[in-house]
Amino acid sequence: MTRERLYLFDTTLRDGAQTNGIDFSFEDKIAVVALLERLGVDYIEGGYPGANPLDTAFFAEPRTRNATFTAFGMTKRAGRSVSNDPGLRDVLASAASAACFVAKSWDYHVRVALGVSEAENLDSIRETVEAALAAGKEPMIDCEHFFDGYKANPVYALSCAVTAYEAGARWVVLCDTNGGTLPEEVERIVGEVVKHVPGSRLGIHAHDDTGQAVANSLAAVRGGVRQIQGTLNGIGERCGNANLISLIPTLKLKRDYSERLQISVGSAALAEITQISRAFDEILNRSPDRHAPYVGEAAFATKAGIHASAIMKEPATYEHIPPEWVGNRRRVLVSDQAGKSNLIAELDRVGITLAKDDPRLDALLREVKAREAEGYSYEGADASFALLAHHMLGTLPRFFDVRSFRVMVERRFNAAGELVTVSEAVVKLDVDGEERMSVAEGNGPVNALDIALRKDLGRYQSAIADLELVDYKVRILNGGTGATTRVLIESRDAAGARWYTIGVSPNIVDASFRALVDSMTYKLMRAGAVPAGEGAAPAGFRLAAAV
Amino acid sequence: MTRERLYLFDTTLRDGAQTNGIDFSFEDKIAVVALLERLGVDYIEGGYPGANPLDTAFFAEPRTRNATFTAFGMTKRAGRSVSNDPGLRDVLASAASAACFVAKSWDYHVRVALGVSEAENLDSIRETVEAALAAGKEPMIDCEHFFDGYKANPVYALSCAVTAYEAGARWVVLCDTNGGTLPEEVERIVGEVVKHVPGSRLGIHAHDDTGQAVANSLAAVRGGVRQIQGTLNGIGERCGNANLISLIPTLKLKRDYSERLQISVGSAALAEITQISRAFDEILNRSPDRHAPYVGEAAFATKAGIHASAIMKEPATYEHIPPEWVGNRRRVLVSDQAGKSNLIAELDRVGITLAKDDPRLDALLREVKAREAEGYSYEGADASFALLAHHMLGTLPRFFDVRSFRVMVERRFNAAGELVTVSEAVVKLDVDGEERMSVAEGNGPVNALDIALRKDLGRYQSAIADLELVDYKVRILNGGTGATTRVLIESRDAAGARWYTIGVSPNIVDASFRALVDSMTYKLMRAGAVPAGEGAAPAGFRLAAAV
Repeated sequence: MTRERLYLFDTTLRDGAQTNGIDFSFEDKIAVVALLERLGVDYIEGGYPGANPLDTAFFAEPRTRNATFTAFGMTKRAGRSVSNDPGLRDVLASAASAACFVAKSWDYHVRVALGVSEAENLDSIRETVEAALAAGKEPMIDCEHFFDGYKANPVYALSCAVTAYEAGARWVVLCDTNGGTLPEEVERIVGEVVKHVPGSRLGIHAHDDTGQAVANSLAAVRGGVRQIQGTLNGIGERCGNANLISLIPTLKLKRDYSERLQISVGSAALAEITQISRAFDEILNRSPDRHAPYVGEAAFATKAGIHASAIMKEPATYEHIPPEWVGNRRRVLVSDQAGKSNLIAELDRVGITLAKDDPRLDALLREVKAREAEGYSYEGADASFALLAHHMLGTLPRFFDVRSFRVMVERRFNAAGELVTVSEAVVKLDVDGEERMSVAEGNGPVNALDIALRKDLGRYQSAIADLELVDYKVRILNGGTGATTRVLIESRDAAGARWYTIGVSPNIVDASFRALVDSMTYKLMRAGAVPAGEGAAPAGFRLAAAV
Repeated sequence: MTRERLYLFDTTLRDGAQTNGIDFSFEDKIAVVALLERLGVDYIEGGYPGANPLDTAFFAEPRTRNATFTAFGMTKRAGRSVSNDPGLRDVLASAASAACFVAKSWDYHVRVALGVSEAENLDSIRETVEAALAAGKEPMIDCEHFFDGYKANPVYALSCAVTAYEAGARWVVLCDTNGGTLPEEVERIVGEVVKHVPGSRLGIHAHDDTGQAVANSLAAVRGGVRQIQGTLNGIGERCGNANLISLIPTLKLKRDYSERLQISVGSAALAEITQISRAFDEILNRSPDRHAPYVGEAAFATKAGIHASAIMKEPATYEHIPPEWVGNRRRVLVSDQAGKSNLIAELDRVGITLAKDDPRLDALLREVKAREAEGYSYEGADASFALLAHHMLGTLPRFFDVRSFRVMVERRFNAAGELVTVSEAVVKLDVDGEERMSVAEGNGPVNALDIALRKDLGRYQSAIADLELVDYKVRILNGGTGATTRVLIESRDAAGARWYTIGVSPNIVDASFRALVDSMTYKLMRAGAVPAGEGAAPAGFRLAAAV
C-alpha cells in the first residue's frame, strides 16, 4: 500500500522567534538550521527578510542543504503595484527557494485592520503568488485567522484559499492565528475546505492557546491537509506553536498515521529526536522540560511503587512506545548493568577500550554518578569526560598544576572621574617543578582568568598557541545567587577540531576555572605533549580529538 | 435549555504525587486542598490511605468542605475475602466520603501482572464496589489500561466496566494509563462503551504522553463521559495528567462545551484560575510556565509590531478570549520589533500614563532600543523597565548611590593544606550623604556582592528586609569568555509580589550588580520609601507592584 506524503514545515526561526524571551543571534540561526536538517524537515522558514538587518543578512545566501529554504513575508499591499512594494521585493530578492506570505482571510480583519475592500485583498493574494512564481520561488499563502474567519464568513474565507490555490500557490496554509479553535472544529472546517482545494495543497498552522496545538494539527491531517507547520519544542508566540518534537514521533509510530502517511523524517533521525530537542534547549540556554512527551527526562520514568516492578518484568505493560525509538531511555531503578554498558559505549567513543569485566569500570561509574549528582552533565562535555576517565584509569598526564589564583573585579571612579569596572587575575602555576606567576586584565573575571592561565605555560606554550574559546555558557542549576553554577566551554584549534569541557561549582569563577583548565589539558594531550619524566600521552586522546 | 452536568475530579494529591521530583508534605496537602476548593472541583482525591504514614494520617479526618473527599485504593486481591484485605480495609476505614479503586481491565495484565483468572478479576471488582457501598462510601472504579485493553480484547474490557457499573459504582473511569491513545480512538471507544454503561456514570483519566491529555479528555466528553480526572498544572507521572487549569477555561468559555455542559466552577472562580495556578507553583517552589494556556504570563502577550497595533485598536482581533475572564492580562511586549503603541501600553501597565504625543516618548523609545541593541531585553524584566522609564522621565527617586565595589575570588591552599575557593565583596554606598562600607563573604562573587549590598542600607534597611532572590539566570549573548553577559534576576517579598530585573555588561559581576541594584531600588519604591529631600515616590510604582 502506498502511503501519502505529509510535509513538515518548521517555523522555529520565524514564529518561534516571536516567543516572549527568545532572541536568535545569527550564529543561533545557523545552529538551528543544522538541527532541523539533522531531523529532516521539508521546509525551514528562516525569518522575514527586510523586517530587520539580521534576517536580511541571513537571507543573503542559501542556508540549507536538503530542506527548502523559505522566507516569510506579507502579501502585497493593496493600492500599490507588485514592483512598488519594498517588503515584497525584499522577499523575492532573497536567497530563499520558497516564500510564505501571510494574507488576511477574515473579512472583518480585511475591513478593520487593512482598511481595504474584500476584492482588493483577493487581488493582493493573486498578484503576490504570481509575482513569487515569476521570481522562481515556490509560493505559499498563510491564511491568517482562517478558522475564525471561516466561522464568521465561510464564503469569503474560502475564496481567499481558492484564490491562492488557483493562482498557483504550492501550499495554502490554514492558520489558527488566535489559537482558540478546537480540534473538532478544525476537522470539520478542513473537511469543507478540501471540497474546494485539494488536501495535497493544504497546510495547518496551529497555536497552543487551549493546550491543543498538537491535537489540532492531527485533526487537520485527518480532515485532509498534507502539510504541518510547527516549531522545535513548541516555541512560538503566546502559548507556542504546534510542537514538531511531539508530532513527529506520533506520525511515525502511531498506526493511525504511519500506515497512511509518510514523512521525511527517517527512523534513524527519530532515534536522535531526544538529543535534537535538548540541543535546541541548549541554544536557548534553558533547561529541557522534564515532562515533555517522548523526549522529556521523565517521559519514561516510573516513580517506584506498583508500576516499577511490572516495568522490570515487562516494559511494554507501562510504556506506549519503546523509549529507544525516540532516543530516550527508561528510568526505573538504574540497573548497574545498564549503566555499565552505557559507560563502555561512551568510553569507546572517546577512544578508551575497556572490557566489560574490568574492575575499574565500577569505580568510574560511581565517580560519574557522584559528579552528575553534583551537577555535572557529561553528555555535552566529551573532553571533560575523557579527562575524567583517564584520571580514574591513571593515564592522565600531569602537564601543570595550578597552585592558586586570585580574581578581582572592581567598580570605581578612575582618575578622570569616570566610573569604570576593572577585572584582574593572578595565577600561580607549577610547570615541570618551576613556579610561574602571571597576571592579566580582562573585560570580565573569567576572561581575565583565561588570559592569565594561558600567558605562560613554559615549554608547553607553543602547543596551546592556537587554542581558541568559541563559546561559553552558564547555567544556574537551582534558584538564587547562592545556587550551583554549571559552565560549559567550547574550544577549537587551528586544525578545526572542537571540544567541550565542563565545570561545576557554587562559584561561577571556580566553575569557569575548571572548564578552562580541562580545555587546556585536553589541547595539550591532543598536541601530543609529554610531561617531563612521563611516557607519551595515551593514543586514545589523539583519536578522540580527531572527532 | 438545561445543560448536562460534567464533574471534575482532581487527582493532584494522588497521581500528581507520583510526578518525578514532587513530594507533598502534610502542610502542602492542606494548602492544595484549599486551592482546589477555591477553584471548586467536585472531587478531591487526597492520596492512598495505608500506602504510607503521611497519607494514612491525612485520611484520619475529613479535609474538604464542599468537594467530595476521595481516597484511592486497589480493588480487593483475588483469593482473599473483603474483610481479610488490609489495603481495602484502610481505604474503607478512612474519613473519605468516596473511594476510587483501581482495577485491571486489560486481559493480558490480569493474567501476567496479577496472575489470576479473568473471572476472578471481575469478582474482585464486584465485591470491592459492594464493600464500599456497605461501608457508606461513594464507590468508583478506575479501569486501568482501559483503552489498550479494549483494543486487545474489547469484550473483556467492557465486561470490567459493566461489572463495576452493575455492582453500583457511581463512576466507572476509563483510564489511558500508558498515555499513548489518540483522541480519535478515545472518542470512538467511548462511543462503544456508552452503549453499555450510561455516560453519566463514566469518567476519563488521560495522560500526556503524546501531548494530547487535554484533547483526549475533551474527546471522551464528546463521546459521552461526564467526569474528567486531572491535576493542577497537569502534573503527574511521566508527562503528566490532563491539566485541569487548561481544561476548565475551555469547558467554561468555548461554546461547543459551555452550551451543552455545566461544571461546578463558577465565573468568579474562573477569574481566579491564573492566581490559583501560580499559587500551586508556589507550593511546588518552581517558576510558573510562562507559556501555559490561559494562565501563562505570555498567554496574552504580543511581540510582533504588526499585531501590536491591531491589538491596541481592537483586542478581539488577536485574542481568543478576554484575558481578564481567567484572571490573566494582556501584555504588549517592549522589544526590538516594538513601536510607540507597544511602549504606551507597557508604560500603562507599570502605572505610567503618557499621551501619544508626549515628546518624552521618543527619547524613551530611543533609549529602550539602544539598550536592546546592547543586549538588554525588557520583555522579561518589568521592574527594570519601570525604573528605566522613571529615570528617563525624571521621576526616579535616588535612594542610594554605589560609590564603588570590589569583588575578589581566590583559590588557594588554606592553613590545613586544603584547596579552598573564597569569595569576598566590599561595597561602598552613599545613603543620605553618608558613606557606608560593608564587606561580606559568599559562596561565589555574585552571592558575596548581593550580601554586601544589602548589609547596611541605613534607614532603608527595614524596607528591604523581606526582599528575597528567587532565581538568577545568566545568558551569554555571543561566543567566548569576552562576550556580553545578560543577567536576569527574579525577586519576591513577603507580600508575595514578584518582579524581574536585568543587567547587561561584558563583565558578569557588573551585569549582576546592575540587576541586583535594580531589584533593591524597585523594592524600595514598592515599599513607598522616600529619599531625604524628595517628594513621595510616584504612585505608579505602587500600582504596578500591587499586580
